[in-house]
Amino acid sequence: MRIGIIGTGMVGQTLGSKLVSLGHQVTLGSRTKDNEKALAWAAQAGPDGHAGTFAEAAAFGEVVLNATGGTVSLAALRAAGAEHLGGKLLIDLANPLVFDADGQVTLDPANTDSIGERIQREFPEAKVVKALNTVNCALMVAPDRLAGEHQLFIAGNDADAKAETVALLGGFGWPAEWIIDLGDITAARATEMMMPLWLRLMRKFGTAEFNYRIQQAK
Amino acid sequence: MRIGIIGTGMVGQTLGSKLVSLGHQVTLGSRTKDNEKALAWAAQAGPDGHAGTFAEAAAFGEVVLNATGGTVSLAALRAAGAEHLGGKLLIDLANPLVFDADGQVTLDPANTDSIGERIQREFPEAKVVKALNTVNCALMVAPDRLAGEHQLFIAGNDADAKAETVALLGGFGWPAEWIIDLGDITAARATEMMMPLWLRLMRKFGTAEFNYRIQQAK
Repeated sequence: MRIGIIGTGMVGQTLGSKLVSLGHQVTLGSRTKDNEKALAWAAQAGPDGHAGTFAEAAAFGEVVLNATGGTVSLAALRAAGAEHLGGKLLIDLANPLVFDADGQVTLDPANTDSIGERIQREFPEAKVVKALNTVNCALMVAPDRLAGEHQLFIAGNDADAKAETVALLGGFGWPAEWIIDLGDITAARATEMMMPLWLRLMRKFGTAEFNYRIQQAK
Repeated sequence: MRIGIIGTGMVGQTLGSKLVSLGHQVTLGSRTKDNEKALAWAAQAGPDGHAGTFAEAAAFGEVVLNATGGTVSLAALRAAGAEHLGGKLLIDLANPLVFDADGQVTLDPANTDSIGERIQREFPEAKVVKALNTVNCALMVAPDRLAGEHQLFIAGNDADAKAETVALLGGFGWPAEWIIDLGDITAARATEMMMPLWLRLMRKFGTAEFNYRIQQAK
């Protein structure tokens, strides 16, 4: 499958490399065509890894992943172009983190809105599925780094798009039964709002390699 | 120990009954002295269970638990009286849930503030510890209803008050090593912001008897 990734940071690169290793073709998109990180990634990714602009990556992908920081996601997706996103599964991994001068991290938006919802509203023809934003990218593509079962959460308005997302996550090593469908795209608020806890835990543990397991009554 | 509970709902009553069963003396406080739920609870709780006003419960307790809904907690604690809270451990269980007409549940405050912080700011002489607000009250007092380890989170500015909270939770059946100290009271934001996920999970599972387990790398 051809996959476009919007964003060239560690998340985009990690996902891109895993997808290439699984036999997919990947274009990593950045704001400018000469982005050094994207070019370096493509150079080592082999013939199935490409670099391009946001628009080129979105046009290339049958599926598009938003791996930008949440506070710049809408600008990046505008540059990618609504005409390249319509009708496609758009997996949104973003968390809208704002790092304040006082050391606090807040979300923008939060509580009454989410990045996932904003993307769906601005690109109504895209099939937005919120996913993967609750785990570190090393775990995204290798859930067996943790012992036993642990959870991912998905949210979105289109059942087929969510099923396609679950299948893609299966390729990363996530059993379908570990993935909890929280409902429509407004549930993106719930997973984005887990970030303050996640950041506290990361600071406490000194590692990003942890995840949530939901335990139910015996 | 003498414990004052602010709030007469299911959370307050469940905690009160457990505390009485553990040999503590409990006064359940309500807005008015003739609150029927509080009087009925005290009648069946035996000689160690009492009912009274918010102020009477706070004055009675060597430790005070805030078991009111988060949107009314400050009003209830003002009625309880700063003079009855100063110097005491004040365990805050509140979540500031606002149920909107459109079926969405939001928090007020959220993200840049929390009920835990607001209480600590308004009652600077109290030793506020945020705890227990991430689990259903049946689990609060019986963590063994779920199989295996699962987590509670605490936050607060006073290390001794947190240690005292951990000891009290131990009486409820929570091993100290299951409880994660997230830091100062601003971390109350993190646990209050887990509520949107919790509510989605509750609707999905059809039960409130679940909890989070944090899994770390092997």
